[in-house]
Amino acid sequence: MEVKNQIILAMDLMDIISAYDVCEKICEYINTIKIGYPLTLAEDLKAVTVFKENFEFNVICDYKIADIPATNEKIADLTFKAGADAIIVHGFVGSDSVEICDKIAKNYGKEIFLLTEMSHPGAKMFLEGTGEKIAKMGLDLGLKNFVAPATHLDRLSAIRNVVGDDSFIISPGVGTQGGNPKNTLEFADALIIGRSIYNAKDPKIAIEKIINNLK
Amino acid sequence: MEVKNQIILAMDLMDIISAYDVCEKICEYINTIKIGYPLTLAEDLKAVTVFKENFEFNVICDYKIADIPATNEKIADLTFKAGADAIIVHGFVGSDSVEICDKIAKNYGKEIFLLTEMSHPGAKMFLEGTGEKIAKMGLDLGLKNFVAPATHLDRLSAIRNVVGDDSFIISPGVGTQGGNPKNTLEFADALIIGRSIYNAKDPKIAIEKIINNLK
Repeated sequence: MEVKNQIILAMDLMDIISAYDVCEKICEYINTIKIGYPLTLAEDLKAVTVFKENFEFNVICDYKIADIPATNEKIADLTFKAGADAIIVHGFVGSDSVEICDKIAKNYGKEIFLLTEMSHPGAKMFLEGTGEKIAKMGLDLGLKNFVAPATHLDRLSAIRNVVGDDSFIISPGVGTQGGNPKNTLEFADALIIGRSIYNAKDPKIAIEKIINNLK
Repeated sequence: MEVKNQIILAMDLMDIISAYDVCEKICEYINTIKIGYPLTLAEDLKAVTVFKENFEFNVICDYKIADIPATNEKIADLTFKAGADAIIVHGFVGSDSVEICDKIAKNYGKEIFLLTEMSHPGAKMFLEGTGEKIAKMGLDLGLKNFVAPATHLDRLSAIRNVVGDDSFIISPGVGTQGGNPKNTLEFADALIIGRSIYNAKDPKIAIEKIINNLK
């Protein structure tokens, strides 16, 4: 996936009008947006279509799919049918659940991103220590796209070591959550940035500032 | 949650018309339905409302929520606002992600179910061995509702041992997936049954047969 300016907008606003408004202001700087279930449930799958049709964005659906293969298959199919370019899939549910999503993605000529690791406090309980194993599983499945956190550069670097330079890593946690853009891009291919853009008084100035700091 | 005849219909059909049709045929026997993201994405959150308004069912949203607390909060809020009586939440993401869903549920006077374990082949990779720990975490959080698989009675029994007799366990995997209804109810409080009812030539006869076999 080609990500303009190495920035993916995490659009976590909950209504499509406000979301559209932010996108209009910054669409000259980005071509890729990540939306989640909150916006999708609030507005249904047309949320995907709005960003595709009006901005021609790559739309990554961050649904963190984590069900059995038969259910993952249905979720992935509906999401790609709605126009999504990629879905984020949880790795901890195992290879069969991930593989079916990749199969459906390929049917549509689209992609999946494998979520290797999370960095909220609760992740310490069961997910800690699984990041590299999940990344390795993804590699074994032939996946090229991974998600790894910007808030712990040592972890991000460890995941990069596993997946190699040919893989594409996108990294959330930059901005409000504390991740540093420049340092993150030493290991990641694109930054996922949300609140520090869409909550900014002037989203355009906010993103210009981020881009300038990256130079 | 009071589950009539100890049977929860797993409504995994993908359109609301067919789903409605099955419910009409068997609504004298059930009062609780479980829907997932496939039906919700296909029809949006009104899928919840349809079952509430037309059948007064308890609606359990099996979204296997597995995100960071801030996102889980938004998903739970939208789901309960749409009328859901309960949401199924993944435990492996840790206590903070679970706790926020419980908090939102309580705001609405509703409930969550904690998913302790899965039984598809991929679950062996990272989830195996975490079931009891997740159940214990739920108990520590004061939760009363759990999900544990019918397809492995030893595992279901182990989860029951952890959560105790005062907890309420619902159990998927009965019917097409091979779980035996009667044996499952030695450890679980209610069965989650899908295909063997909604795919039956006559769903009414199918559910009557299951109920009679339970006697």
